[in-house]
Amino acid sequence: MQSGNANFFYATKFKSSSAMFYFVGVDGTELLLLPEMELQRALRESKVKEIASYETLGYEEKLKELKSPKKAIAEILVEILKEGRAKRVLIPNEFPAFFAFALKENFEVETIENPFLKVRAVKNSSEISEIKANCEKVVAVFSETLKLLTSRSLKCEEVRKFIELELWKADLIAEDTICVSGKLSADPHELGNGEIEEHLLVDVFPKNRNGYYADFTRTVILKDNPQLKEMLIAVIEAQKKAISMLREGVNGREVHETVKDTLKNYGFETRKGEGFIHSTGHGIGLEVHEEPKIGDVDATLKSGMVVTIEPGLYYRNVGGVRVEDVVLIKKNGCEILTPFERFLAL
Amino acid sequence: MQSGNANFFYATKFKSSSAMFYFVGVDGTELLLLPEMELQRALRESKVKEIASYETLGYEEKLKELKSPKKAIAEILVEILKEGRAKRVLIPNEFPAFFAFALKENFEVETIENPFLKVRAVKNSSEISEIKANCEKVVAVFSETLKLLTSRSLKCEEVRKFIELELWKADLIAEDTICVSGKLSADPHELGNGEIEEHLLVDVFPKNRNGYYADFTRTVILKDNPQLKEMLIAVIEAQKKAISMLREGVNGREVHETVKDTLKNYGFETRKGEGFIHSTGHGIGLEVHEEPKIGDVDATLKSGMVVTIEPGLYYRNVGGVRVEDVVLIKKNGCEILTPFERFLAL
Repeated sequence: MQSGNANFFYATKFKSSSAMFYFVGVDGTELLLLPEMELQRALRESKVKEIASYETLGYEEKLKELKSPKKAIAEILVEILKEGRAKRVLIPNEFPAFFAFALKENFEVETIENPFLKVRAVKNSSEISEIKANCEKVVAVFSETLKLLTSRSLKCEEVRKFIELELWKADLIAEDTICVSGKLSADPHELGNGEIEEHLLVDVFPKNRNGYYADFTRTVILKDNPQLKEMLIAVIEAQKKAISMLREGVNGREVHETVKDTLKNYGFETRKGEGFIHSTGHGIGLEVHEEPKIGDVDATLKSGMVVTIEPGLYYRNVGGVRVEDVVLIKKNGCEILTPFERFLAL
Repeated sequence: MQSGNANFFYATKFKSSSAMFYFVGVDGTELLLLPEMELQRALRESKVKEIASYETLGYEEKLKELKSPKKAIAEILVEILKEGRAKRVLIPNEFPAFFAFALKENFEVETIENPFLKVRAVKNSSEISEIKANCEKVVAVFSETLKLLTSRSLKCEEVRKFIELELWKADLIAEDTICVSGKLSADPHELGNGEIEEHLLVDVFPKNRNGYYADFTRTVILKDNPQLKEMLIAVIEAQKKAISMLREGVNGREVHETVKDTLKNYGFETRKGEGFIHSTGHGIGLEVHEEPKIGDVDATLKSGMVVTIEPGLYYRNVGGVRVEDVVLIKKNGCEILTPFERFLAL
């Protein structure tokens, strides 16, 4: 596995901007491979016990000969695997093609879903605490934001700036916070700018200093608009139904079907990029979108999973509404980690 | 090219957490492929004119048949390339192995260095303005930090928090700002924590809201320590010599050699993870580390490149010092974008 993603950090508990590789043998032996300049820090911080540097494995000589850092590293990878008498090498789907092809010249290579994706989906108690604390801060900041909205007329970007600064003060890093109004909000990932019109959709997903995310959305109606109001009522109802289904053993696909059916029963059709155009939710943790998906694919929920439930409706001539909570799956039900009023009309 | 990195954003001027692909034909035709829910936003924001969604290319039917989003997308990629009568497909080195292997079953596939890496190395005037403005803010915040250090006794993490909050107020996002003291600073990427001992190394690399970075390091001596002082003097001298060489046409490798020689002439040896254990610098832009490298590889500098020059010295029984500026390469010289006193002893 190559560095640069949450799986790597989860497996090694080590973060660096340098290129690193992580090996696991069939017997469970682990190896973390990295530049010499990261060695001492990795020995202190990483949970991987065996750590080697490129330099001690002949990197400099190889670089002189091959004149390419990548080729030198590929040769080291091949040597390590040959030394471990590997015949078959499993690499995660996202492994870089350059190194994948280099391995394929020497071994039987197969791409697999990164095994840590599935492992990461079920959180341990310390991870749950991280996310919970993050969620509490987000809800508190959103509550302050609402007060501000009732007292002052603000532009979308001013709301974003306020939220992100308040989150920062609470030691959370937020970027690209969605604060969108008007017809632009028909695009679920539009960040928004300019005057707030009849409603404001706020979707905030900060991470804490240990890398754990929260993800929370509310739609606030500021001027009476029957269409937006009806959409919001339907979305809230769909979200409530979905949450009421959550418990260990449930299939995420069925939750998603329920959301789709509920919105349809309210008369909201989905077609050609309008309506309910995304999935119902996703796991959160070291990434803002991770396993499990709550959508069109089978996904059995397990106790300890932390997922978002975030139905939305989007129509070009009206705009979009969405309501999103973070929910912890339990054996016989679930716990909402972002409890906050859903129907908000100022 | 698959989404998720600076090259993708540079090529398409479109950012999304969704999986997207970008194609360029031999005749220069471009195609951006993404989920339907991103289509309208992409049509507004992206500089790519031809944009298609998975859904209009049969994604849902393929998903039903193949039961894997990845396999469905791979089939769409293959169909698009076949329709374009592609025989040979060039993919960037970092392209995900899963899709690389799927393409290889159908085409002659070759990995290449992402062509945008080289293109991005030379900045246009608007990019230079972005980086320059970022650098000015960083220097201003560092100046405030120095004042704080003279007036109050702080811990490393308190300095980090102060810097990041001030940067945030200036609309810059900083994470993992290095504020390290004592022997821990012998590891160049150690973030630091606890009491400030005899010196403080501050390395700050925030990005602005358009994604452009700055990168600035100063080492402040707070209590007289002859070893640290000598190291700092040598590093400053090496940095000055390096900067005096910078101009269009110079080879980065020679700049690096000069830094190595200068530090050696001051009596500082490099061996076994101690001494000058990293390269002299790197380009900055949409990534904090990008092309060109100023290190052990050939790299001809061009006018418009923006690079860091950041020699350092690291010894386990003393700690580390580093001085880093951002420099704009010009035809007949260079411009320091982070002008600030280098020898700092409070």
